[in-house]
Amino acid sequence: MKKTVLALSAALLLPVAAQAQQAPRPEQLIKWRQSAYQTIAWNTGRIKSNVDGSYNKDEVIRAANVVAALANGGLGSLFAAGTEAGKGWRDTTVKPELFSDREGVGKVASAFNKEANELARVAQGGDVAAIKAQLANLQKTCKACHDDYRVN
Amino acid sequence: MKKTVLALSAALLLPVAAQAQQAPRPEQLIKWRQSAYQTIAWNTGRIKSNVDGSYNKDEVIRAANVVAALANGGLGSLFAAGTEAGKGWRDTTVKPELFSDREGVGKVASAFNKEANELARVAQGGDVAAIKAQLANLQKTCKACHDDYRVN
Repeated sequence: MKKTVLALSAALLLPVAAQAQQAPRPEQLIKWRQSAYQTIAWNTGRIKSNVDGSYNKDEVIRAANVVAALANGGLGSLFAAGTEAGKGWRDTTVKPELFSDREGVGKVASAFNKEANELARVAQGGDVAAIKAQLANLQKTCKACHDDYRVN
Repeated sequence: MKKTVLALSAALLLPVAAQAQQAPRPEQLIKWRQSAYQTIAWNTGRIKSNVDGSYNKDEVIRAANVVAALANGGLGSLFAAGTEAGKGWRDTTVKPELFSDREGVGKVASAFNKEANELARVAQGGDVAAIKAQLANLQKTCKACHDDYRVN
């Protein structure tokens, strides 16, 4: 009884700071991950338009930096336990395998990370053919993940 | 007549590359901008959780880098003419003033840019109080833009 009262008091006295640490709801995480991957799509699309058409070096660098920052940004935290199903902007299209195949997911995630950082590096050089080839390398890693872990 | 035939032939012969340069549809731009700002919210939220609770220097650096990359990324292009109204993930909440008040928008945009880059810089230092103060500076610029150019 005494313990219960103490625990309750402690909970009521939790500082605002600790409350701010509450994990976001699954629906919020799903909305954020849908947003993050759309943001990646916006930027890979911009790079593609540039290397296939009218090339603007600065725009490609800026877009590649967004992709790299997101790849380095800890996207994995948006796939926390509890987000296997649910609705963000729309119902998630993630497959259950993403949450069980830790080794496979680790491989596609580090491949994406590596190619995204390499694209940001190559973008600085301004060699359009090299950027185009590196964008293709990156997009292979997107496809590999979608094939295995996304309902298409 | 000859001119028309020539023009038509030229259009039919447009390389795929040039076709890839077609501007994205307004609904696509609206979806991307909603995604980009949600991605910013995810990352400012992470920084806030860190400075208010359990602090992880690397996570704050990564999150601040995402915000800065997006701030430098050319978000303005997502507010192209034709996107004053329409539905991305949901109906846009942008006010018409964003498209007419060029000077005011320029000011809030460069304030956001400046504070986001400063946050990425301060994050590297690992001084929690300084990061917290700089996050507040950044969030002031978010609020200023929302107050003037977003239906709340």
